[in-house]
Amino acid sequence: MEGFEKALQIRAEQAERIVLSYLPAEEGREKKIYEAMNYSVKGGGKRLRPILMLEAFRLFGGEEEKIHPFMAALEMIHSYSLIHDDLPEMDNDDLRRGRATCHVVFGQAMAVLAGDGLLNLAFETAISAVSGAEPEDMAKAAKAACVLAQKAGCSGMIGGQVADIEAEEKGNIADDGELLFIQEKKTGALLEAALMIGGIMGDADDEQVQRLKRIGRWVGTAFQIRDDILDVTGDEAQLGKPIGSDEKNDKLTYVSLHGLEAAGKRVAQLSGQAERELSLLPGDTTFLKALFSYLIERNK
Amino acid sequence: MEGFEKALQIRAEQAERIVLSYLPAEEGREKKIYEAMNYSVKGGGKRLRPILMLEAFRLFGGEEEKIHPFMAALEMIHSYSLIHDDLPEMDNDDLRRGRATCHVVFGQAMAVLAGDGLLNLAFETAISAVSGAEPEDMAKAAKAACVLAQKAGCSGMIGGQVADIEAEEKGNIADDGELLFIQEKKTGALLEAALMIGGIMGDADDEQVQRLKRIGRWVGTAFQIRDDILDVTGDEAQLGKPIGSDEKNDKLTYVSLHGLEAAGKRVAQLSGQAERELSLLPGDTTFLKALFSYLIERNK
Repeated sequence: MEGFEKALQIRAEQAERIVLSYLPAEEGREKKIYEAMNYSVKGGGKRLRPILMLEAFRLFGGEEEKIHPFMAALEMIHSYSLIHDDLPEMDNDDLRRGRATCHVVFGQAMAVLAGDGLLNLAFETAISAVSGAEPEDMAKAAKAACVLAQKAGCSGMIGGQVADIEAEEKGNIADDGELLFIQEKKTGALLEAALMIGGIMGDADDEQVQRLKRIGRWVGTAFQIRDDILDVTGDEAQLGKPIGSDEKNDKLTYVSLHGLEAAGKRVAQLSGQAERELSLLPGDTTFLKALFSYLIERNK
Repeated sequence: MEGFEKALQIRAEQAERIVLSYLPAEEGREKKIYEAMNYSVKGGGKRLRPILMLEAFRLFGGEEEKIHPFMAALEMIHSYSLIHDDLPEMDNDDLRRGRATCHVVFGQAMAVLAGDGLLNLAFETAISAVSGAEPEDMAKAAKAACVLAQKAGCSGMIGGQVADIEAEEKGNIADDGELLFIQEKKTGALLEAALMIGGIMGDADDEQVQRLKRIGRWVGTAFQIRDDILDVTGDEAQLGKPIGSDEKNDKLTYVSLHGLEAAGKRVAQLSGQAERELSLLPGDTTFLKALFSYLIERNK
């Protein structure tokens, strides 16, 4: 595991450098919004999505520069979704990863615009990659940009946010199907996008891209259920956040619906499925396999 | 003028049909957000941006279907910006065009997401047009999508919104340069995008696209100053909204900075510049010329 953690750290630092290189300079009359956007993207996080994208790309090989703009675009979309999720009218969170959230620092109006600005910049970055591609790469880049837009949109991540809000409004009376929908969309969709875009830009064939999509969905769902388990059994000091918040907020989770034991089994099952599919892909899958185990077995 | 108004009505109805054809079906678990998005786009308005885009395209000619997704995408971006502008933390408007605004009908959280959903769908629509283009059209469509992203983003419309909010926060103490920046970006950028994308998809050369850009900027600025004039001299019954609101809100406008007479002269000057540039473009510019006059000389 020590070797893995070192390998993960190297990849996280590389992903960080790539993502930050696509952020705007904090200048001009619109300086304030660039500060708010950069503040949020620079707020840390695992950089999981760009790492997954680059690793999926590496399974197939190719010039790595071609995937960089898509790595940055995906992380910008993740960041914008957090800014808007934290707003008072949404989850009303003042803290994220130990720092004041965007609207606390920059005001609520600026936080709405900073989210809009990041979503727009994500597509600006992806579309520039399409427009600037060599003629033989253009169709491939356009396909990657399509996946980005679909997975980020109403049939993807935003759809999951909507279902989540609606479930909260009606008092969390929901069934397993609704919970699965929320998890697959809200967390899973961007992980699917990460792996699929990596594959597409690496010239994976359609069957391989579909395989990457399934892996993303399963890992995303397992990751989310693990989060729900940790909210019950976790160590506050290790997690860096209070446990028991789901129960306190009467939040519907896989654990509250099916119990801890079934939740643990489900994580193992999803993880096994992801691993089997992964073994059918070309290239060296060692790191990705270890990363999936790490994400799913983590204690923090 | 009667012939023009009929011609405008025909074009507005056509633009309306095209835009609406790209809206999502109100179904699935994410139904509520589709309702909120469609409610806002269907809320009327002049459909000025898609009309301008199609007319610019027609100057150069070509299969009109190719411009349709970009017309819809631009109008979606306009609509999302209005949803977010109307939010309580922004302009806090309960009414737009005589109807309750999105957050009043669907709640504030859903309005944030509906705006996000429309911005995302706009790019999904534009990128699909790139991805689905014939190989010989793909580079052109990618260039059009780039312009869309740039003009909608922080160096375009969002930048204008940011400057506007900052001006309000600091009590509207601003100079002519700041006012010009806000007007050119907040209103002008999407009008520039409309005309430029029309030209690009119609195979206009770079010089012609730059000409279209300048025309968009001037007409947008003139349109805005005309708005400011009407807020002082307009007829409430004709306008369908109360006059004097800029003065009441201590809002900085061209009129408050330079007076009514200078404002009238500036509109005439900008309109003259736009007309001269327009006369240098190919095709039948009669309708566009009349449309610019109508926008700039309007009483409502």
